[in-house]
Amino acid sequence: MEFSSKLLERAVDEMSQLPGIGKRTALRLVLHLLRQPDRQTKRLTTALQSLREDIKFCSNCHNVSDLPLCEICSNPKRDQGLVCVVEDIRDVMAIENTGQYPVHYHVLCGNNSPMEGIGPRDLTIDSLLQKAQQGKIQELIFALSSTMEGDTTNFYIYKQLQPFNLKMSTIARGIAVGDELEYADEVTLGRSIINRIPFEGSLSAS
Amino acid sequence: MEFSSKLLERAVDEMSQLPGIGKRTALRLVLHLLRQPDRQTKRLTTALQSLREDIKFCSNCHNVSDLPLCEICSNPKRDQGLVCVVEDIRDVMAIENTGQYPVHYHVLCGNNSPMEGIGPRDLTIDSLLQKAQQGKIQELIFALSSTMEGDTTNFYIYKQLQPFNLKMSTIARGIAVGDELEYADEVTLGRSIINRIPFEGSLSAS
Repeated sequence: MEFSSKLLERAVDEMSQLPGIGKRTALRLVLHLLRQPDRQTKRLTTALQSLREDIKFCSNCHNVSDLPLCEICSNPKRDQGLVCVVEDIRDVMAIENTGQYPVHYHVLCGNNSPMEGIGPRDLTIDSLLQKAQQGKIQELIFALSSTMEGDTTNFYIYKQLQPFNLKMSTIARGIAVGDELEYADEVTLGRSIINRIPFEGSLSAS
Repeated sequence: MEFSSKLLERAVDEMSQLPGIGKRTALRLVLHLLRQPDRQTKRLTTALQSLREDIKFCSNCHNVSDLPLCEICSNPKRDQGLVCVVEDIRDVMAIENTGQYPVHYHVLCGNNSPMEGIGPRDLTIDSLLQKAQQGKIQELIFALSSTMEGDTTNFYIYKQLQPFNLKMSTIARGIAVGDELEYADEVTLGRSIINRIPFEGSLSAS
């Protein structure tokens, strides 16, 4: 792609560093900003810059937060001993949206992934071990992605925490509610049969 | 979507103002920036800001340019009298990439689109008329989108320029090279039959 302007080229280059944004999309986005009033670009750049400079992470669960201790961790109504281990803030939001469980969280800030140069030391595993040592945790629920990286991370943490005799579980994998069996992939369907659960009459018949 | 941080919420809101970027994608992009070193965000915001503040448009063709007169307009090897009318810089780049024709351009900076509140006055039509009045143009090639807006703009400019007795043409519409007839849409196929061209034996047989 040849540009008639170095300024434009630089903006497109930087924009296309974002994941899933190619050069063409970047050009479309940048040209859109050019057509809008100045203040839109100003607002976007200020928001990104102040996010990057002033963002804080909760000292307890490592979730993104404006306060030293996030709202979830400082909520006395939540069960402090029940901790859900997740990868990042999006998972916290997804679980919070279910409204099912007033748990605490522990955000790992990623997954073990040697391919991307992320090892256990880049995650917040030490802080989780510390909480376990201090006896703050009674039960752990692992809610990591069902990928190679997620499974490895899960197993690594499980091994590290075994000495503490905690109750540890992982969220159920199986056929999604509303899905039809014939379209499910073999691995999921296989696992859902192996991990079958007792039929509770109350759910479907009374 | 509920956020645990106002800073994060503001950044996601601003990011999702960009076309084709929803809230979820915006969150993914913003979290990506958070995981990268500070300097990446700094580079992106500086590039966008300086583009918006320092960008210039060529005084002749209205294309994005770092100079008062862009490289194409100041190139003496190009035929000044042959002007290709396009919507924006992406079209200039696309035509330049073909390497077919050393034309000059006239960038309209959009299309007539009452739905988006864009009328003829928001485009650079006046400047095109001026060039025609000054006798700078001998031939015009319209290369606008084949949409309702593009066609309307095309017709509007054609009407305005009729008194000047210029040679005016529009790029050919038809079946793309390499496409199979059975998959072409009816309108394109119909037009390609109406606007059929003399068969030149040299192309397929010698």
